[in-house]
Amino acid sequence: MLDTADRTLTAAEQLAASNSRKVYVEGSRPDIRVPAREVALTAAPGGAAPAPVRLYDTSGPYTDPAVGTDIRRGLPPLRRRWIEARGDVEEYDGRDVRPQDDGLRDGDVRANTEQFPALRRGTLRAKAGRAVTQLHYARQGVVTPEMEFIALREGVTPEFVRDEVARGRAIIPSNVNHPESEPMIIGRNFLVKVNANIGNSAVASSIEEEVEKMTWATRWGADTVMDLSTGRNIHTTREWIVRNAPVPIGTVPIYQALEKVDGKVEDLTWEVYRDTLIEQAEQGVDYFTIHAGVLLRYIPLTAKRVTGIVSRGGSIMAAWCLNRHEENFLYTHFREICEIMRSYDVAFSLGDGLRPGSVADANDEAQFAELRTLGELTEIAWEHDVQVMIEGPGHVPMHKIKENVDLQLEVCHEAPFYTLGPLTTDIAPGYDHITSAIGAAMIGWYGTAMLCYVTPKEHLGLPDRQDVKDGVIAYKIAAHAADLAKGHPGAQAWDDALSKARFEFRWRDQFNLSLDPETAMAMHDETLPAEPAKVAHFCSMCGPHFCSMRISQDVRAYAEAHGIAEDDAIAVGMSEKSREFREAGGKIYVRADASGGQAAS
Amino acid sequence: MLDTADRTLTAAEQLAASNSRKVYVEGSRPDIRVPAREVALTAAPGGAAPAPVRLYDTSGPYTDPAVGTDIRRGLPPLRRRWIEARGDVEEYDGRDVRPQDDGLRDGDVRANTEQFPALRRGTLRAKAGRAVTQLHYARQGVVTPEMEFIALREGVTPEFVRDEVARGRAIIPSNVNHPESEPMIIGRNFLVKVNANIGNSAVASSIEEEVEKMTWATRWGADTVMDLSTGRNIHTTREWIVRNAPVPIGTVPIYQALEKVDGKVEDLTWEVYRDTLIEQAEQGVDYFTIHAGVLLRYIPLTAKRVTGIVSRGGSIMAAWCLNRHEENFLYTHFREICEIMRSYDVAFSLGDGLRPGSVADANDEAQFAELRTLGELTEIAWEHDVQVMIEGPGHVPMHKIKENVDLQLEVCHEAPFYTLGPLTTDIAPGYDHITSAIGAAMIGWYGTAMLCYVTPKEHLGLPDRQDVKDGVIAYKIAAHAADLAKGHPGAQAWDDALSKARFEFRWRDQFNLSLDPETAMAMHDETLPAEPAKVAHFCSMCGPHFCSMRISQDVRAYAEAHGIAEDDAIAVGMSEKSREFREAGGKIYVRADASGGQAAS
Repeated sequence: MLDTADRTLTAAEQLAASNSRKVYVEGSRPDIRVPAREVALTAAPGGAAPAPVRLYDTSGPYTDPAVGTDIRRGLPPLRRRWIEARGDVEEYDGRDVRPQDDGLRDGDVRANTEQFPALRRGTLRAKAGRAVTQLHYARQGVVTPEMEFIALREGVTPEFVRDEVARGRAIIPSNVNHPESEPMIIGRNFLVKVNANIGNSAVASSIEEEVEKMTWATRWGADTVMDLSTGRNIHTTREWIVRNAPVPIGTVPIYQALEKVDGKVEDLTWEVYRDTLIEQAEQGVDYFTIHAGVLLRYIPLTAKRVTGIVSRGGSIMAAWCLNRHEENFLYTHFREICEIMRSYDVAFSLGDGLRPGSVADANDEAQFAELRTLGELTEIAWEHDVQVMIEGPGHVPMHKIKENVDLQLEVCHEAPFYTLGPLTTDIAPGYDHITSAIGAAMIGWYGTAMLCYVTPKEHLGLPDRQDVKDGVIAYKIAAHAADLAKGHPGAQAWDDALSKARFEFRWRDQFNLSLDPETAMAMHDETLPAEPAKVAHFCSMCGPHFCSMRISQDVRAYAEAHGIAEDDAIAVGMSEKSREFREAGGKIYVRADASGGQAAS
Repeated sequence: MLDTADRTLTAAEQLAASNSRKVYVEGSRPDIRVPAREVALTAAPGGAAPAPVRLYDTSGPYTDPAVGTDIRRGLPPLRRRWIEARGDVEEYDGRDVRPQDDGLRDGDVRANTEQFPALRRGTLRAKAGRAVTQLHYARQGVVTPEMEFIALREGVTPEFVRDEVARGRAIIPSNVNHPESEPMIIGRNFLVKVNANIGNSAVASSIEEEVEKMTWATRWGADTVMDLSTGRNIHTTREWIVRNAPVPIGTVPIYQALEKVDGKVEDLTWEVYRDTLIEQAEQGVDYFTIHAGVLLRYIPLTAKRVTGIVSRGGSIMAAWCLNRHEENFLYTHFREICEIMRSYDVAFSLGDGLRPGSVADANDEAQFAELRTLGELTEIAWEHDVQVMIEGPGHVPMHKIKENVDLQLEVCHEAPFYTLGPLTTDIAPGYDHITSAIGAAMIGWYGTAMLCYVTPKEHLGLPDRQDVKDGVIAYKIAAHAADLAKGHPGAQAWDDALSKARFEFRWRDQFNLSLDPETAMAMHDETLPAEPAKVAHFCSMCGPHFCSMRISQDVRAYAEAHGIAEDDAIAVGMSEKSREFREAGGKIYVRADASGGQAAS
């Protein structure tokens, strides 16, 4: 039984409470073990229990009672041996941590320059002249353990994974310094993924809270997490997050670079930025958002917008360009950035610094001019064997969504698209997880590979634990709806298993198969808390004398008993059916599937 | 200031708390007064206050401090004079209320056969041989006061309203016995509407609660309300709801008919049903869901579905057909039903008894066979001058949504479509307001005229007050997103006003213009509760040193000061811009528009 009133369950307890267990599918070698959540189902009266259902699992070792996790020690370095076995990396003494990395000045007593408490291994990078990216391996025809892991996870062949990565149509964010991460893939021929943003700011939040938000987000299904911290302790917060993250971690390095120059945009330099890239690459960040497409000449295009520039990174670069009257240094130094990325296998997430912040600004010249530049940069990154995805949307009304995907596919040569929402209207602050889940589902269907979530607090404040959960759930809905619409093989099996449970009044199975078993159960408990209601052939919506599911079952029972298909049943005529039905009949149940606690009709 | 901690605000207090007031737009005569919510805006520093924004208002007299409302007296009969002035109705003594109408037997001491306490007027119906429907008037070329009211409400010409009604492409649900209702229109060339379902069941809920749910739903924007009560007190509950409803009320008469025969489907007869139609028409119900398309031969088509028949009305009729081996009596008596509907101007909502209850069953032969029959019935209803809308979806994955609308438009001759959701996946019980808001927004864009809401409690239990609100808000989002995507003239002005307020840091204006000012404000308060934060040029998401909005404003200020357009700015070259920017500069603010309390980048 769930015990939410008293305390929050651990991830493992929560899993057990939903009649589920952590299982692993083993690959061609014992250290390729792909996690899944296996939901056990119960038998309907008189029937055998259906086969258990296996669901994609992003929660990491936290849901495995056999693994003891301790956030001060970090997760086991799952991929370390695979990386070392390739023979193309070297261990070296990484850059020293400085007070400035945490937003402090030299000698500040608050500086915490200690490394992560339990990290006992050295930093890795490519040997001189080598590329250690999954794109490089894929182009060489090599199926890495990461690719095999992903193939099992997605239900496709390893060769298909390799091929999609080689074509640049999918990426595997996998910094050699983040071996704790379980391999996953972002590409439009795979399951649609969800990113959750976390991060403290100058106003609120602590390190422990951010680590907890990261594990909490992955418990509900976040496929990657972006640490968007600003203010103090950026470096240390990130270290804790990366060491404990079973999913890839993304960042926006310009935020930290700006902290290092005390927030003075005009003092930003390529050297400070480069230093920050290396610092974060050494920590194990798997992808960097880099706003290299905000060119000097695009900035005036935003002057007449309703909401100007709303991307933080975009506006930092715009301010820098205006201030210096120089071209964006991320653009002018792009090839040097590529050299760094390929040495650690950090993927590009080419930032959309000019994305629209209101429906009025959607699909305008500023937005699309930048997108075309991102397409040019994609080709340069690929020359360097660096993996690339492209950031997009923001606020876009429904009829303008598809144009974004079509143009992105064309000008960015099918590099994976990674979009924020989009929000389909501006009028609902407090509910932007919903305004944007609409756009996210659609853009996922049209071809976006990963959806960046939006929480209910969007535009209003820092999300708390509940907001993070609400954002992730809304986006898991959007992503799965997109998988269904794209016809992803296997996606509908989950829906069918849940709907069958619903139809057969296996209430607990229905709850356990849902995205949030605890909430589904709690809502059922509100009107019918007693245990018998969990097996009853009715619910509070219509009461015991009304249930449409039952009549359907009677219809089916008749058809099955007589071995007739639909067409036959019509041919046989309804006469016999009618007689049998009356005889077998007894009580008629009719129940509805609609809201208001009632059928819509 | 909002005062939600202590008690719930009245509708009028809530309006005032959002710096809004009730206003009326007067038509060609003083008794045509169209309500609107007018939101007053504040000035940005150094500027004049923007013009107030007027929003469509469904809340009725409850938000007008000048009108004293009392649910024991009901609302003023706004339309009564218009109806009488047409000279085509007669007043008569309506059918007597019987204990059976409330689900009781003769002599049951619990019977409450009293009429609504304050109703002092007689029942109306068409004089012999007359049609009193808005469709009839429209076809005669008459622009009724109802049509003029709607034209002002929607911002179109009265002639356009008349023409759309005459073509059957829009309906005005307006029973002559529900003069309390403010005229509204359902059609795809108007604003997309939202219906909220309420109703008690055998298991829970009381009359007062249901009346309160109705006014609560309209406060948040429900355009119509369906009373789907079952169990006891059906008649009395409905009477209270209708007398207090400023919006059209819909019902599913078969529910009450079934109560009258003690829940025994086999005892249902045309006579009992006919009596129920008249009973409800006399009370003032504005539209009836009638499942006349569930034909005997379609029933076996549901036998192999994953979830069979999930519409309550649909399964009642299926059970009746199977039991009797007779064709659906709603189909065989359809012309007689039309005669009743035209005498009171009750509109048909032709029920989709075979709608899919799981994504696996979407768009199947059962569903579409019934839809084609509904198209045939539409033509018959139109022969009788009766208004018609068509019910649809349920559970439909995104890629199958458009087919529903296209087929409906074709086979139902453009009669308005009224759809439940659709839910775009089955996996999220507890969050089906979101799974279905995605489908609702899309189907609204494609052409659905009214969306039937789904609450978070769907499939799990009876919605409470919070669930009703959550359902309505999710559907107002879907409807407005659809209006934007359809390019409804004027729809985007609301978004633009809110986005401008956001860009200019007019926080209170942003809250007040939102769908739920109270929640937006409360979320902002969570991190920055102090009054100065409501005018601050930053927020908790990035803190005082980061705000992208500010840099945009600097860019704009520069462009305006120099009188240059975007192209010119490029031509002038960035050099001067750069110098000016540095001089005017001072602090750089950069702020984000993304979640995680952070920019996505």
